[in-house]
Amino acid sequence: MSLSDTVIRRLPLYLHFLRQQPENVQNVSATGIAAGLGLGDVQVRKDLALISGAGKPKIGYDRLELIDALEDALGNRNKKPAVIAGAGKLGTAFLEFDGFDDFGINIAAAFDCDAKKTGYSGSGKYIYPMADFEDFCRTENIVIGIVTVPASAAQDVCDKMVASGIKAIWNFAPVRPTVPDGVLLQNENLASSLALLSSRLA
Amino acid sequence: MSLSDTVIRRLPLYLHFLRQQPENVQNVSATGIAAGLGLGDVQVRKDLALISGAGKPKIGYDRLELIDALEDALGNRNKKPAVIAGAGKLGTAFLEFDGFDDFGINIAAAFDCDAKKTGYSGSGKYIYPMADFEDFCRTENIVIGIVTVPASAAQDVCDKMVASGIKAIWNFAPVRPTVPDGVLLQNENLASSLALLSSRLA
Repeated sequence: MSLSDTVIRRLPLYLHFLRQQPENVQNVSATGIAAGLGLGDVQVRKDLALISGAGKPKIGYDRLELIDALEDALGNRNKKPAVIAGAGKLGTAFLEFDGFDDFGINIAAAFDCDAKKTGYSGSGKYIYPMADFEDFCRTENIVIGIVTVPASAAQDVCDKMVASGIKAIWNFAPVRPTVPDGVLLQNENLASSLALLSSRLA
Repeated sequence: MSLSDTVIRRLPLYLHFLRQQPENVQNVSATGIAAGLGLGDVQVRKDLALISGAGKPKIGYDRLELIDALEDALGNRNKKPAVIAGAGKLGTAFLEFDGFDDFGINIAAAFDCDAKKTGYSGSGKYIYPMADFEDFCRTENIVIGIVTVPASAAQDVCDKMVASGIKAIWNFAPVRPTVPDGVLLQNENLASSLALLSSRLA
């Protein structure tokens, strides 16, 4: 079963909502989920049908079964190991953010070219010097790389990621690096999003 | 002149690239910018024509003039004041990130419901208790609100922002809050982006 990008983007919302419900909530309705998330009823029902089948009339979905189905769809049973390149403010925030663990990836470590940053971060994850990058990624079978270095270093870091066997790159540097065919690249430019919001205000 | 969303999203990339060039670089070509950012030549030329006119044949654009034109288009002459609600890891990273200042907004302060967080952040910006939110926003004419609170608090915070005169909300909580007509809402779900990247790997 292949889900569309827009459906996949909504699955973490459902999962987060269901996990936030009190322990004693056994059943949830599509209507309740839709209201809680500010989404449409019909959309929620369609999305959930794709990953779990229909809810029972007047009862809805078993909450824990639906959580299981969402975790399966998001690959949480088989977490993909990731690394962060660039332990500046954004990189460190990501390293210490436990929310990513819920969505099918496990951040194994961060790397920084400044050797003074080597050591444990606040969250107990390790920041290594950049010189150890390729060895670490090969040994730990890292498949996802998160780029939080300055723009001027982003292409070099992406090249290093590709050379280290990484298959998907999530880039936060404000450039568009190039990667070979077969490597996924997702550019995330927070400044661009902010510029867009700000311009709409004008 | 009204620019499309996709053009506006690229303007911060150009601006960042031009500012990163050495001081003694007087002229830049569309080809050089395109190569530096991994974009297409034709696209760069079209985008720049919209905000600054065409470059001179064989010379290109005057770098400083182009920076001025981009800053104008992005509203940097008239920075819009913003606040952050939620001084957790992501909120604090944003508060200390100086990159937003370059793109037409000025983050004035952060707010948190935990009074123990009150005080100066590492960057010298102040974190206030949530009780001061409306007064501060009214006094400082805040127009943009950045939401980095947990999902369960996001709707309350958005309501408070709207009641405080905020006109555009940039929401990082994993829910879709509702806002009245006339208020802009941009949802940014990093977990959703990561889920999408991770699922493409499967």
